[in-house]
Amino acid sequence: MEVYKMEKTDVLVIGGGPAGLISAVTGKLYYPDKSFTLVRKYEKVMVPCGIPYIFGTLKEIDKNIMGDMPLEKSGINLKIAEISEIDRQKKICKTKNGDEIGYEKLIIATGSEANKPQWLKGAELENVFVVDKSMKYLSELKEKLADKKNITVVGGGFIGVEVSDELNKARFKVELVEILPHILMLAFDPEFAEEAENVLKERGVKVNSGKGIEKIVGDKKVEAVILKSGEKIESDAVILAMGYRPNVSLAEKAGLEINKNGFIKVDEYMRTSDNDIFAVGDCAEKRDFITREISQVMLASTATSEARVAGMNLYKISTVKTFNGTISIFATALGENAYGVAGITETVASKKNIDYVIGLFENMDKHPGTLPGARKQKVKLIALKDFGTIIGGEISGGPNTGELTNLIGFIIQNRMTVNSIVTAQIGTHPFLTAAPTVYPLIKAAEDAIKKMHK
Amino acid sequence: MEVYKMEKTDVLVIGGGPAGLISAVTGKLYYPDKSFTLVRKYEKVMVPCGIPYIFGTLKEIDKNIMGDMPLEKSGINLKIAEISEIDRQKKICKTKNGDEIGYEKLIIATGSEANKPQWLKGAELENVFVVDKSMKYLSELKEKLADKKNITVVGGGFIGVEVSDELNKARFKVELVEILPHILMLAFDPEFAEEAENVLKERGVKVNSGKGIEKIVGDKKVEAVILKSGEKIESDAVILAMGYRPNVSLAEKAGLEINKNGFIKVDEYMRTSDNDIFAVGDCAEKRDFITREISQVMLASTATSEARVAGMNLYKISTVKTFNGTISIFATALGENAYGVAGITETVASKKNIDYVIGLFENMDKHPGTLPGARKQKVKLIALKDFGTIIGGEISGGPNTGELTNLIGFIIQNRMTVNSIVTAQIGTHPFLTAAPTVYPLIKAAEDAIKKMHK
Repeated sequence: MEVYKMEKTDVLVIGGGPAGLISAVTGKLYYPDKSFTLVRKYEKVMVPCGIPYIFGTLKEIDKNIMGDMPLEKSGINLKIAEISEIDRQKKICKTKNGDEIGYEKLIIATGSEANKPQWLKGAELENVFVVDKSMKYLSELKEKLADKKNITVVGGGFIGVEVSDELNKARFKVELVEILPHILMLAFDPEFAEEAENVLKERGVKVNSGKGIEKIVGDKKVEAVILKSGEKIESDAVILAMGYRPNVSLAEKAGLEINKNGFIKVDEYMRTSDNDIFAVGDCAEKRDFITREISQVMLASTATSEARVAGMNLYKISTVKTFNGTISIFATALGENAYGVAGITETVASKKNIDYVIGLFENMDKHPGTLPGARKQKVKLIALKDFGTIIGGEISGGPNTGELTNLIGFIIQNRMTVNSIVTAQIGTHPFLTAAPTVYPLIKAAEDAIKKMHK
Repeated sequence: MEVYKMEKTDVLVIGGGPAGLISAVTGKLYYPDKSFTLVRKYEKVMVPCGIPYIFGTLKEIDKNIMGDMPLEKSGINLKIAEISEIDRQKKICKTKNGDEIGYEKLIIATGSEANKPQWLKGAELENVFVVDKSMKYLSELKEKLADKKNITVVGGGFIGVEVSDELNKARFKVELVEILPHILMLAFDPEFAEEAENVLKERGVKVNSGKGIEKIVGDKKVEAVILKSGEKIESDAVILAMGYRPNVSLAEKAGLEINKNGFIKVDEYMRTSDNDIFAVGDCAEKRDFITREISQVMLASTATSEARVAGMNLYKISTVKTFNGTISIFATALGENAYGVAGITETVASKKNIDYVIGLFENMDKHPGTLPGARKQKVKLIALKDFGTIIGGEISGGPNTGELTNLIGFIIQNRMTVNSIVTAQIGTHPFLTAAPTVYPLIKAAEDAIKKMHK
């Protein structure tokens, strides 16, 4: 006779990534009298953004573990199990081994998994990998790569670029294949993408951009990647970095509404079509902050923002605590070179029929520019032509690029105009920022103003 | 017979520092049909914030020159001369050699000069210096220091601290004297000031904090600094970093209103008591953004902000282009350690009878924290207890501290609340920022919210 356990919790969170973790921690902060349980599949969880760095910078994979301290400190129950079914009528979740957990409120944070496209011939061969997020898969991947030399990475988005750079750093011979004209083209305007691509090449990665993959060939084990151009890249291993798709099967089976892109539909409070069930992170629907269109951006930072909103609105909703659309603020680094983007690019603004002006400025990121370590810093702002509201920005520069990108993100969230930027107060320091006389956001805003009045 | 020249310009700017430069450049941008002339005393102008770095990091002093390219590119006339009188009736300025320049609008950007207190016995001895801003003085200072060994710096504000650190870097034996309990105490709360002080000590500077200077002694040349405690510091040279006072003699002689602290009185458009005369930068009155009290903060970054406002409002004023009080955003660096502050500190909030809560958070500035170069990052936010509006913030951390401080500055300028911060979207990257799950501004805001409801 099998014995099933029946548990009860006020709030149940499915998923142990950043979205699950933060929705639980925030919920418990706002509703301390409620009991919270987080269920996840794996004993240990990877820091998602840190995954590319296990290939080079971090010597051991367990240096990239997201600790359970926040859960413990908040008094959230942790259960390692796989949920197999959500019963919305009875308000219970069933685990694979037959246990049941009753809930009042449910948060679905089931994340996403790496694409291995059906159409790609040879994707099933040995030594063809994806960038999965589980520690088990990644440990095995690292082991299997140990005796390899030539690695081909397919896909020049953030993950493909960061993984390529790290493998190169770890002394592999790396080729990167990207179908678009340059790497990072979905995130950046061409001039920034091209600059990043040149840096990646200088660092030793062979970049095949503008070239689609035709198939992977080999006898059981991968031997080569064949491009649509007919070119052949000898490969001991292939890593597919061709995007992620939301994990929504649980939600779908439970009859929750799924949008046309395959994400769980949510409102501004992160509620699904069932008011007692929330969805956050990669599995939840996203809407672009500017274009208001459904978006496919998946970022840990956006996920945590959604998670905080869900956690706050669990038992009572507040109109000042809503998620108002994804701004997609992100940054990446190649050595000392960094690239950041917030809001929409010029490419998108143009495609979406937005009447915009751009503001450009380029100078040094320290002052005087003769200081050791000073690097070129380039800022591009995109603003509405009629009103000057800033809707996007891109940066290339050095180590302060990440927070400068966040500054642009806050500017967009506050719907600030180029006029409010040029009169804004800033702080500067020789080693930490550009000079006050040529602070890049202000100079780029000035440039945009000139174009508004043309 | 002497020949005097009589020139005419639409806009005349007196002073070649950041405030003068930026008011001229901005004015010309907004009023391209007007002629602009900038008059300054010296052929070459130092980057003011870069001055401490001529002692160590920058090998040659002429690596710290603020170029004239912005003036040339904007079509602004440059004249090297010293203005000796402003005749408001005739709307002309007279130079020391007798030339006259007629103006429609005048911008006074005469800056500040280093204090050499009258009460300080021995301040007139040879080898007692101040941190003057002229290239001539600084070149001579550097030359005279060349054969010295023991240098005492008096005053532990930003300039004193940065100069001490740089002299130490240049292999001098440096002692710093500060009357307050810790260095940087006028800028930071004690816990941040103490941390910076410990770093400065570890780097090799002997810090005598909590100790006032009694006098400087020596026979013609300085020999020692005597503290109020009776202690004696053998010194081959002394550098006084005891603050700056505004240069307002021209304005005062012209009958413009001067405030009780000795600054030229200005309104939100940076106009003096004469509507055709503006004042910007260190010589112009400042009012604190939060307390609304007259302030004595002198920063190049604030100066450029005032200068932009003046430039925009020269011929027609605009209520959306005003300077609404000084937020005093600044940062400093000691090697890889950086400290930033924006708005008011807890010390000031408490003294000024503000009902506040503080939010604290400390973690690593990269993620995972095991990444090479990851440093501790500490954030403190000060918010109004009743409404949650953020009025100040302090940071200690690494190279991204400068722009993170600017982010807090923008938060204060936008009068954002802790609630808007906890739902804000951010972007993160392993090498560039803290983790999305523990982004320090959000975690500190969460901490503040907990205290608001107590």
